[in-house]
Amino acid sequence: VSRELLDRIGIEHPIVQAPMAGAATVELVVAVSEAGGLGSLACALLEPEEIRAQVEEIRSRTSRPFNLNFFCHELPVSDPARAARWRERLAAYRGELGVGSESPAMPLLEPFDGSTCAVVEELAPPVVSFHFGLPADGLLSRVKSAGCLVLSSATTVAEARWLEQKGCDAIVAQGLEAGGHRGMFLAADPTGQVGTLALVPQVVDAVGVPVVAAGGITDARGIVAALALGASAAQMGTAYLLCPESGISPLSGHSSPSRATTPRG
Amino acid sequence: VSRELLDRIGIEHPIVQAPMAGAATVELVVAVSEAGGLGSLACALLEPEEIRAQVEEIRSRTSRPFNLNFFCHELPVSDPARAARWRERLAAYRGELGVGSESPAMPLLEPFDGSTCAVVEELAPPVVSFHFGLPADGLLSRVKSAGCLVLSSATTVAEARWLEQKGCDAIVAQGLEAGGHRGMFLAADPTGQVGTLALVPQVVDAVGVPVVAAGGITDARGIVAALALGASAAQMGTAYLLCPESGISPLSGHSSPSRATTPRG
Repeated sequence: VSRELLDRIGIEHPIVQAPMAGAATVELVVAVSEAGGLGSLACALLEPEEIRAQVEEIRSRTSRPFNLNFFCHELPVSDPARAARWRERLAAYRGELGVGSESPAMPLLEPFDGSTCAVVEELAPPVVSFHFGLPADGLLSRVKSAGCLVLSSATTVAEARWLEQKGCDAIVAQGLEAGGHRGMFLAADPTGQVGTLALVPQVVDAVGVPVVAAGGITDARGIVAALALGASAAQMGTAYLLCPESGISPLSGHSSPSRATTPRG
Repeated sequence: VSRELLDRIGIEHPIVQAPMAGAATVELVVAVSEAGGLGSLACALLEPEEIRAQVEEIRSRTSRPFNLNFFCHELPVSDPARAARWRERLAAYRGELGVGSESPAMPLLEPFDGSTCAVVEELAPPVVSFHFGLPADGLLSRVKSAGCLVLSSATTVAEARWLEQKGCDAIVAQGLEAGGHRGMFLAADPTGQVGTLALVPQVVDAVGVPVVAAGGITDARGIVAALALGASAAQMGTAYLLCPESGISPLSGHSSPSRATTPRG
């Protein structure tokens, strides 16, 4: 098993904590990085000043490498007429279920842009990972010039090849089992998505950069399997939701992942 | 890695050739068993006399263990009115596409029953595997009394537990990636099916009998991964379709499995 990626990042164990916006905390990032894996701070829901504050907090508590994760989705084109039809359709159910009037529309989640890029340049985290593709070439080269190792997720071989061609340093092969957002960005048909066991060796064969396996990995057996399939590391999210450092509520912490998928020591 | 199952069957390598009705041949079964794996003859489409003849052929060419596979599906209740509505609906498309009149209805595929069981008792193959559950208890105990090791497929943890309770000697954990018939028999919702990487360790934790991993395994990397996940062996089908012993047509042999999934030497 190649340690090239681990050595480039500077981590001991082939484990990447999946960035989970809303569930991963600074405490979790610090705990994973201190334990020799790669902690990942999900920045998709954070304002630039929050990113800066949380990275300062991380750096005050560990000198180990960590990862900042951003979304590169394309914003949907606003369609007020369609939105109005949705509201109208839902109004009947609101009445039936007695859930009262409509809650205010949530602001659209902005993708990685020039202002987030400026914060990344300023903070120069060891690793930056993207989801839903990559930012525009100009932004990507700024991130790379800041010295960050760049990762992004592929759910198909075609997406992996595209990411490598754009200059990704490593590719997260995200199988169908992954609990997080599917990182699809070239693929449009979710029924064409494949499981981690089938995806990882195909991506490993298709690209020259290191591959991180993601999806359905919850314990040491899964990590060893991922390495056997040719991955350099495993990215795990759901398994961390049961940790004391997890940001999910105690209720979901106790009821959500089944005993059968609980990591074993 | 436990060799218990391999030693019980009497095979050298942790490889079960998936029974593929219509694609696997006596030649393939013999080649796999002779090479130290477990060749599997798909009997679902065969009459008792054909099973007898093909097993004689296998035994004339190898003294190694082999597997006979049968379907245990429940026959659908006949509904002539519904069938008539289907035919009516399709008639318009037949006209539009000029495919002529309806072809005669195929006979229903009969599940494993008393007469097939009698042939199994007579032939006493080393291994019998079932798909879509297990035959009725009386038939199953006859198969076991004949000295056959019994395997069946589970696509969920609940199915695996059910099979173990019924007396299965080993369980094929069939992940979502499997190219063959899905062996679902308790589960009804296909959207609840999981990938091999996630399914295998859960089944291994849930049952005490050996587990064979199936689905998306095409080369040595997948076999090592399956063993790392706790399986005792890997069952592979699609990978064998490209062998000279495969019964598929040359056209599908060259176009169907992509290069990326072609087994490497």
